[in-house]
Formats: sequence, structure tokens, C-alpha cells
Amino acid sequence: MSGRCAFPVSRAERAQLAMVLEVLASPKPGNVDRCHDYPETRLEHFIVSTLAAHTPLQAAESRSAGLGSLIEEAVRATSCHTGGNTHFGAFLLLVPLIYGGGIDGARRAVRESTVEDAVAFYRAFALTRVKVNATDELDVNDPGAADFLRRRGMTLLDVMEYSAERDMVAREWTNGFALCSNGARTLREDPEPRTAVRRLFLSLLATELDTFIVKKHGIALAEETRMRAVSVREGLQTVASLDDWCIEHDINPGSLADIVIGAIYLALEEGWAWDS
Amino acid sequence: MSGRCAFPVSRAERAQLAMVLEVLASPKPGNVDRCHDYPETRLEHFIVSTLAAHTPLQAAESRSAGLGSLIEEAVRATSCHTGGNTHFGAFLLLVPLIYGGGIDGARRAVRESTVEDAVAFYRAFALTRVKVNATDELDVNDPGAADFLRRRGMTLLDVMEYSAERDMVAREWTNGFALCSNGARTLREDPEPRTAVRRLFLSLLATELDTFIVKKHGIALAEETRMRAVSVREGLQTVASLDDWCIEHDINPGSLADIVIGAIYLALEEGWAWDS
Repeated sequence: MSGRCAFPVSRAERAQLAMVLEVLASPKPGNVDRCHDYPETRLEHFIVSTLAAHTPLQAAESRSAGLGSLIEEAVRATSCHTGGNTHFGAFLLLVPLIYGGGIDGARRAVRESTVEDAVAFYRAFALTRVKVNATDELDVNDPGAADFLRRRGMTLLDVMEYSAERDMVAREWTNGFALCSNGARTLREDPEPRTAVRRLFLSLLATELDTFIVKKHGIALAEETRMRAVSVREGLQTVASLDDWCIEHDINPGSLADIVIGAIYLALEEGWAWDS
Repeated sequence: MSGRCAFPVSRAERAQLAMVLEVLASPKPGNVDRCHDYPETRLEHFIVSTLAAHTPLQAAESRSAGLGSLIEEAVRATSCHTGGNTHFGAFLLLVPLIYGGGIDGARRAVRESTVEDAVAFYRAFALTRVKVNATDELDVNDPGAADFLRRRGMTLLDVMEYSAERDMVAREWTNGFALCSNGARTLREDPEPRTAVRRLFLSLLATELDTFIVKKHGIALAEETRMRAVSVREGLQTVASLDDWCIEHDINPGSLADIVIGAIYLALEEGWAWDS
């Protein structure tokens, strides 16, 4: 095919491409992929959410607002389907990475986040159905959350530091986007780009505890998921059997999917040839 | 999920949604769907083409150029992957439907198409790998095609009338977008929107000869494909077995996929609740 290559040309488009390549990677044990929908959340919802993210991701690229408001706008714009939360965690990573123009800029951007970013983030959180700990002092369903944040002077980075121990997406804000950055390198070094994303996913599943699984099911089941992924990598069970087991136990490694999106985005920024 | 629904709000976004819902519908005998890629053309390519179409589809909505140039721009913008032609036929339908703001406007727009639209259309055609008849007087590989069109004073509608007998997408230009319009009604009347697209596809496969199959394999195999689709509808064979047969015989009903995209677009314009 001849003709000028016109996609992706912007950071926002690279982020959309990252969202697409993540969700279409298959098989991805437990998560929505080409071969598996959840009754409420289907592949269509992830793709439609990706399309709907175009304008807010462009806003992140042009820095038309602060990080918190940009995340809020992305969550609001993509709440346009019946599939529930699709990309909340992904936006938490993509927005600073886009805003900052890469890792270094993103680190600077999160350091400069404000209390109002934190307040906007809680508004975004309230739009989703993300599972939260009901005893959490920063319960998003508490209308006093904004007051609390302002009284304590907590910036969005402070909020992420507060959540980092039990949320691997928040942890990326505090460790310089370490998993995303390592994942991008893994993708670029993979000799087969067309199937590299599913290998990255399985590799993360075998090495990191998905904190979304921990919140939903406790640490024991999260650790068992990780050990089963190790046994898949060692050839002791098939990825299909792990997928079945995850679905049977209602285990979806959603936070790892968010990390993978961040990793793909960074790899694309670094020129990764996904289609070669 | 609360929050303002922000997608699709424009004609361009509805067209993108139509492209997504068509390709994700599954099973679709012979075509790329969730369960089937071709070696060269994968589901990723259709989704990436959809993302890349945003700007040119917006141009169609704002009527920033004539129909031919708009089609050319869409084809050029989506030639950004290694998957070959993904949406050429779809743009032939979507561009006038978007430009015209529906059927009536599209009919008027194609009547008003010009010779320069035809010349631009041939430039677009040359960007694709669409199979053409080598003995065709209007061979797109002939650099004299533009001269020929200008000498004869052929508008883009004239070109479509010339091709209508053997190309069902061109035929839509000449019959008031009849199949797209009927398909839109079928979708809106289907009681189960989530699976309506695959039923529309199978229904068209059983009632219309796909002209892409005719060009590629001749009329006998196209007619056999249609009869096999009839037998699926009558419960005499499974859709999976028809899919296998199509793949075995390298039969992909690509023109029907284009018609289905036009039908979904019109249904969405008429308020079809795809996600209900």
C-alpha cells in the first residue's frame, strides 16, 4: 500500500492505538479479549471507549487543563456505553505520560500535581464503578472527600502515594512509571511484534501481583493467579486452562491491563513497529 | 455509569462506530471478525483504519472538499498499516452519507458530483489493492484514466453508473442507497441490538450476490455462497461450517461488509440503540 502514513501522528493517537493493541491481544487470561467478553463488559465497550477518548486525550496533549481535570474529562467522555469502567486505570497512566511527553516529563508533571487535581480525580473516581475499600478514609462515595483533601492539602501525587501500597497503577506515579517503562523495553526487544503484547501480559501476570485481584479477592487468590501464570510460562499448563480458571473464579487482572497500555504507549512513542 | 454521554456526537464518530460494530460482529462467514484473521489483514488493521479515519470523516462532515477528494483523503489516511485495503468500499458509502447528512442529502450530493470527483476517486482507487478487471476500459493502473474521464466528461456518478452492474457498492450510488437503507431498517427492527449486525450480514449473504466474490471467483461460486447462506438460515448447516467453507475457498464477502457499514451508519443516525 502506497500513500502517506497518517496514523498515529499525535500522542493522543498513539494512546488510542495502545488501548486497541492491548484489548485485541489474545489470549489474555481473565480479561476481555478477542475470545472472551464479560456479560456486562464486551470488547465493543473497550473499542468504543477508545474512540470516545480521542478528544480528552488531545486535551492532555495540549495541556488544556490540569492532570486531575484531564483524567476526569477522559472518564466522563468514555462513560458513553453500558459496559461500566473500561479505561479508568489506563487514563491514570496515559494522561501524565501524554501530558509530559514521555517518562521524564510525566515524572515532573506528577510532582507538580495540585490539591485541585486530587479533587478532580475523586470526581472522576466517583463516575466509575471501581471497587473501593468501604472502610477507606478516602472513600470516594463520601461527599466530604474534597473537603478532606483540601484540609489536608493533599495533592494528586499525595493521593497516589497514599494508595501506592495496594494499587499498582497509583504506584507507577510514585516510582517513575517503572512497570510501564520496563514493559515498553520488553515490547521493543520482542522479535515478534504482532504477538508481543500477549507475551508481555503473561510475563507481568507471572511476576507481579495484580492489585485489582487483591482488592477483589484477597492476596491468596492473587498469589495463586501469579503462580499459575508462572506454570504457564514453564509449560506446565496451557494459557487456555489459566483463562478458564480465571473466568471460573471471576478473576480479571484489570490493573495489569492498564500497565500494559502504558507500556505500549511508551513503546510507540519510542518508535516501536507494532505492525512489522 | 453516570456522566454525560459523549459518544458518538458527530456524524464522523457515528461512522467510526459503524465501522467498529461491523468488524466486531461475529461470526461473519469468510470475513475478518473476532474469531478470524487473514494472514495479511487482521482485526487490528480494521480497528486502526477506523481510528485513522477520524480526520477525513470529519472533513466529510464539514464538506471541506468534494466527494472524490474526501474519499481519496480517507483512503490515504487509512493506508497507515500493512493490512492492505480495509475500508475503501465503506468510504464510498460513508462519505456521501456523511456529506449529505442522510439518504436524501446523499442522493443530492452524488447527483452533483463532478468530473474532478471522478478523477480524485481514481487516484484513491490507485492507492488500494482492490481487484480490478485488467481489460476494463477504466483500468485504474492506466495513467490515462484521468484524461479519459475529462475527455468524456464523466462525473463520479457516471463512473458509478458505469460500474453499477458488477459492483454493488457503486450500485448504491445509483439506486438511492437502497441496500444501506433497507439494512438500517432491519437493524432498527431487530429486537436484539447486540447481535443484530451478524444477522443482517447473514441475511444479506443469503439474498444478495456479493459482487466482490463475483469479481474474484466468478458468478457460480458467488451464487453457491448465497445458497449456502440460505441453507444456514434454514438451519440445514451451521454458520461455522459456512465460515470454514468460505475460508477454504478464499471467499470473503467484502462488498457486503461495506453495505453493512453503511446500514449501521444510517441506523445510528436514526437513533438506533446499538448497546441496549
